[in-house]
Amino acid sequence: MSGRAAARDPQQDRSRATRQRLLEAAVACLAEYGWTGSTVTVVAERAGVSRGAAQHHFPTREDLFTAAVEHVAEERSAAVLALSGDLPPEGSSARTAVIVRWLVDLYTGPLFRAALQLWVAASNEERLRPRVTALEARVGRETHRMAVELLGVDESVPGVRETVQGLLDMARGLGLANVLTDDRARRERVVEQWARILDDQLNQANQDRS
Amino acid sequence: MSGRAAARDPQQDRSRATRQRLLEAAVACLAEYGWTGSTVTVVAERAGVSRGAAQHHFPTREDLFTAAVEHVAEERSAAVLALSGDLPPEGSSARTAVIVRWLVDLYTGPLFRAALQLWVAASNEERLRPRVTALEARVGRETHRMAVELLGVDESVPGVRETVQGLLDMARGLGLANVLTDDRARRERVVEQWARILDDQLNQANQDRS
Repeated sequence: MSGRAAARDPQQDRSRATRQRLLEAAVACLAEYGWTGSTVTVVAERAGVSRGAAQHHFPTREDLFTAAVEHVAEERSAAVLALSGDLPPEGSSARTAVIVRWLVDLYTGPLFRAALQLWVAASNEERLRPRVTALEARVGRETHRMAVELLGVDESVPGVRETVQGLLDMARGLGLANVLTDDRARRERVVEQWARILDDQLNQANQDRS
Repeated sequence: MSGRAAARDPQQDRSRATRQRLLEAAVACLAEYGWTGSTVTVVAERAGVSRGAAQHHFPTREDLFTAAVEHVAEERSAAVLALSGDLPPEGSSARTAVIVRWLVDLYTGPLFRAALQLWVAASNEERLRPRVTALEARVGRETHRMAVELLGVDESVPGVRETVQGLLDMARGLGLANVLTDDRARRERVVEQWARILDDQLNQANQDRS
């Protein structure tokens, strides 16, 4: 890399910062106003960016919102993985409980609300559908990979893959249950119980393997 | 009841049939076009009913769609319970597997798509929100009650209630995963595995009790 390329380019920095602001504003708007209420103009205003600048970064509305959900999902996954050094010891029930809680938390914030809005809009809009289908497949694979890594499980053991998938389906269902009401109290009891069940199951799978 | 009231009243029959057609058309429209695309006019047309007649039965759009989702949910629950005589013997793993499949099936048809559209729209529309929140609470309680009855479990045993709740959360998450793509193949593997896990857990809970 030449010295010139390595030096900070203030214009590039500004462009990157603008892009970042647009992505975050897009997720916030989707979560708050839904797909119908989230136009490029509304997002640009919230980000404090001109409509022209928004369209320079994201030529279409579909580009902006799919990029936004993907970007925020990547940031959240990275944040979770960054914390994994602080987990309770491997093989402990306490560790499983924390991991299940983290995974469920991925589905209960503004990011999930935004993704849900996009998901449901895509089921009725042909232009959005293939984009969101591909996005959800990528985010879903990434979340699954992260769950397997955190839990330290061996997916070659029969049933383990489906156990983890079902756990993520449960997390998604808990996310949906939290959209209209604050479902935290009930969710915590369900998470505690299923973390216990999951821990049993994964210990059994480990014993079957060894 | 007087002889006159017991006799069929053709006008009342017609009115009941119209109402039924409107409720079914409302669920179909919601599932297909989403909340934004589902106006009273669109539903009346699909039902082959005049807009005036539709408004006579359901004064507001909110009345029509919340009544529709509740009505179809009640019909589906009744249909599931009506089949319960044909289940495999009590206490068998085969019985648990069939019940888990039935419960998951409740979340993968047009009714769930319609309810999801209403649910997500309610998160951004203040007029819809309290109605849909109350509706979901009623339907959720009814589904939970049905799951407990089918599984024949004792909720006074610690953890059983949360086990059943988590199962229904998983079913809801599987429904969401089926909205954009045909997720049947993956879902069947997850259902098979989670039915096995559930069966283990419920047997353990039964042993703890006895």
